[in-house]
Amino acid sequence: MFKKVLVANRGEIAVRIIRTLREMGIQSVAVYSTADKDSLHVKLADEAVAIGGPRAQDSYLDMNNILSAALLTGADAIHPGYGFLSENEMFAEMVTAVGIKWIGPSADVIALMGNKAQAREAMRKAGVPVIPGSEGFVRDVKAVEQIADKIGYPILLKAAAGGGGKGMRFVYHADELQTQFTDAQHEARAAFGDDHLYVEKVMTDVRHIEMQIMRDQFGHYVYFPERNCSLQRKNQKLIEETPAVGVSEEQRADLGAIAKLAVESIDYENTGTIEFLEDAQGNFYFMEMNTRIQVEHPVTEMLVNVDLVRLQVLVAAGEALPMEQADIHMQGHVIEARINAEVPEKGFLPSTGLISDLFWPNGGLGARIDTGIYNQDRVQPYYDAMIGKVIAKDDDRTLALQKLRRLLSEVHIGGIQTNRAFQLDLLSDAHFVSGDFNTTYIEDYFLPAWQETVKEDSNGSGTSI
Amino acid sequence: MFKKVLVANRGEIAVRIIRTLREMGIQSVAVYSTADKDSLHVKLADEAVAIGGPRAQDSYLDMNNILSAALLTGADAIHPGYGFLSENEMFAEMVTAVGIKWIGPSADVIALMGNKAQAREAMRKAGVPVIPGSEGFVRDVKAVEQIADKIGYPILLKAAAGGGGKGMRFVYHADELQTQFTDAQHEARAAFGDDHLYVEKVMTDVRHIEMQIMRDQFGHYVYFPERNCSLQRKNQKLIEETPAVGVSEEQRADLGAIAKLAVESIDYENTGTIEFLEDAQGNFYFMEMNTRIQVEHPVTEMLVNVDLVRLQVLVAAGEALPMEQADIHMQGHVIEARINAEVPEKGFLPSTGLISDLFWPNGGLGARIDTGIYNQDRVQPYYDAMIGKVIAKDDDRTLALQKLRRLLSEVHIGGIQTNRAFQLDLLSDAHFVSGDFNTTYIEDYFLPAWQETVKEDSNGSGTSI
Repeated sequence: MFKKVLVANRGEIAVRIIRTLREMGIQSVAVYSTADKDSLHVKLADEAVAIGGPRAQDSYLDMNNILSAALLTGADAIHPGYGFLSENEMFAEMVTAVGIKWIGPSADVIALMGNKAQAREAMRKAGVPVIPGSEGFVRDVKAVEQIADKIGYPILLKAAAGGGGKGMRFVYHADELQTQFTDAQHEARAAFGDDHLYVEKVMTDVRHIEMQIMRDQFGHYVYFPERNCSLQRKNQKLIEETPAVGVSEEQRADLGAIAKLAVESIDYENTGTIEFLEDAQGNFYFMEMNTRIQVEHPVTEMLVNVDLVRLQVLVAAGEALPMEQADIHMQGHVIEARINAEVPEKGFLPSTGLISDLFWPNGGLGARIDTGIYNQDRVQPYYDAMIGKVIAKDDDRTLALQKLRRLLSEVHIGGIQTNRAFQLDLLSDAHFVSGDFNTTYIEDYFLPAWQETVKEDSNGSGTSI
Repeated sequence: MFKKVLVANRGEIAVRIIRTLREMGIQSVAVYSTADKDSLHVKLADEAVAIGGPRAQDSYLDMNNILSAALLTGADAIHPGYGFLSENEMFAEMVTAVGIKWIGPSADVIALMGNKAQAREAMRKAGVPVIPGSEGFVRDVKAVEQIADKIGYPILLKAAAGGGGKGMRFVYHADELQTQFTDAQHEARAAFGDDHLYVEKVMTDVRHIEMQIMRDQFGHYVYFPERNCSLQRKNQKLIEETPAVGVSEEQRADLGAIAKLAVESIDYENTGTIEFLEDAQGNFYFMEMNTRIQVEHPVTEMLVNVDLVRLQVLVAAGEALPMEQADIHMQGHVIEARINAEVPEKGFLPSTGLISDLFWPNGGLGARIDTGIYNQDRVQPYYDAMIGKVIAKDDDRTLALQKLRRLLSEVHIGGIQTNRAFQLDLLSDAHFVSGDFNTTYIEDYFLPAWQETVKEDSNGSGTSI
């Protein structure tokens, strides 16, 4: 087993990883930007190394500085968390090249799944259903036109190297194809230095359903029950739950088998998540694969009572998966609400500052709060606004919802603004409560209605201590 | 279902009950002494009523004031928690007499199990193994002598109405019997107004094993896996765990069957705990029954994933138990450490004052912290020193221990002294780790050794925020 692991991240995920390392008897090394010198992950780690200035590109994205920190401290593995360098194949390659174990899949696999067009092709060839569209790249407008004639408009032009919506264009009619193609190429080249495009049919009324899997170097494979992460705003998940309403046991097993096809075809190792779109007819289509731990992993951990970070470390250290599919039992229902430091009433403007009178509702059965902040901590403007996750597990979805609402009603984060009240409203929304929502529900329906009714500064107080 | 429930308690158990009530959609009424006006249970409840001065006898033990608060607020049930009036049959009777539901067994059953000699007799007649000793009360020294000749010295003289060690005397030889008998009678009369005594054999090298049960008015019965609560100091439990090391599945089922005999014989309703002593040969003897929720109930909740307070409320409201024995599955291992505001280095002197820089390790899988304190809260001198419970669940006992040590290592409670470091030392003790301990282990072995090695003020810092 590893003696010392460097955690190449910050915030709640760094804290969460450091805690599991400590329980495993493994020394932890935190890295931090100058802005984060008093952060919780720095306080909790056995060692901490400064890696640069506050901006992510000067610290958490600086591969050389992080690698130096690992070599300096004698770390024998690096856990990248999510975001930052977690899906950067060059960094995974560098880490491996200096003899440090990368806790995640190989650089080759990260690269393959990182190129969305290649990933789509690899999955299609492995027998995984993909969204109707091109086979690999499209050379020119003519090729796109032929595909569109077959699958029908609207279509999506997407950058092969893409992500985050860069180089992506909706095309509703043939006559706007040429303009959009040129625009997309141009934007893709500017953003990624690569103007390859591919085509997908625009899927409407779909749900975001994802399968977390785990596979070791011996080919042992398990999947975990699906998560529904359809509640998103600008492609950022807000509420995640498991299992998904309306996914049957048979569909779950099917998705597990499809995910197995996917990861066996690329000899995947460690944990990962395959994201699917589910259409109104219950068909699932491969969207992309995240080759890292995800923000929403706690809902799965609580549903099946498995520490996924511990599994990541065990598998990376060369151990066999300590379980089989038959050992994975789901129990009840789990829902997570992300707490962001932002002002929903002002277009979700980020909120920063000194946290005061912090109150998290510790305690009780099936309550979990993963956070990287503490009282008198400072929320910085340089990083993601997500400062905590409130998670509730109970016997069924109705009870889990009641518990999550109770938890959120107690949360108090003084000194900054958060989306707590927005999340509470969402958790009480009739469509959400009935399980009737898709990936555009928040932006197309909930948010416009919410913005009309809500008063400014609706954050409320929670528990005033 | 109840519309409004008054919680006749304070601290962590009041907070815990109020939270479950809120999740059930039931209004909660807190009661508080003047010293507790800013307490967490007051902040979290829907309503709060002042019931008197800081001393418990002027508030939390004042039956009239609490009953007035219930009538005033229109509560249709009272949850007594543990301690205070929770096992006071007169209060249960008063509550019931005014048409308010008592969340617990009937006043008659509380009275029966509260009289230790009568409880012992009732259990013996029901076929429950009791500690060798007298059948009912002993009339005089002569009667005691005959029993002692049969079961052997040392024996214990105990007050029938007793509790808390009052009116209790060890007798090692026949020639000290007369003196001790007179002394015990005298003390019992002074403490309880009742000088009835009974006799038990002194059991040495025994473990405290207890079974939590639940029974509804229709006679549906379930038991939960046993807890080992042997680690005690002055009859106060310090660390509790479930399941108990060395108790087999067969023994567990036997204990469940014995507990069933016990509660059926007295038509018990709601939750309760039967405490047994287990001798070195694996024989179990009835010690006493607690007719209320216990401090250590969270370990059971986490082991079997059942909210016991919710069950209490459902059963008290007349609903049938929503589960059968076959639905109760234990998973992994759970250990709890009580955090007391006291100074172990100074003979466990209580510590009071303003809490600052409070840090509880929120987050992660299988971690739970039940507490009634918050940052800038004040620990009062009037009440029990227990201010929080840190509970860890993991796949097995070794992992649960590692997690609990990790959790305790992070806890920081500034402004007062606690037993955090003492508990951490205990959790690392070789005898505890190996599961080799009995009810006198702390006082006879661990504590003397600890006191020799420990420096004053060893509380340490935990996570300095």
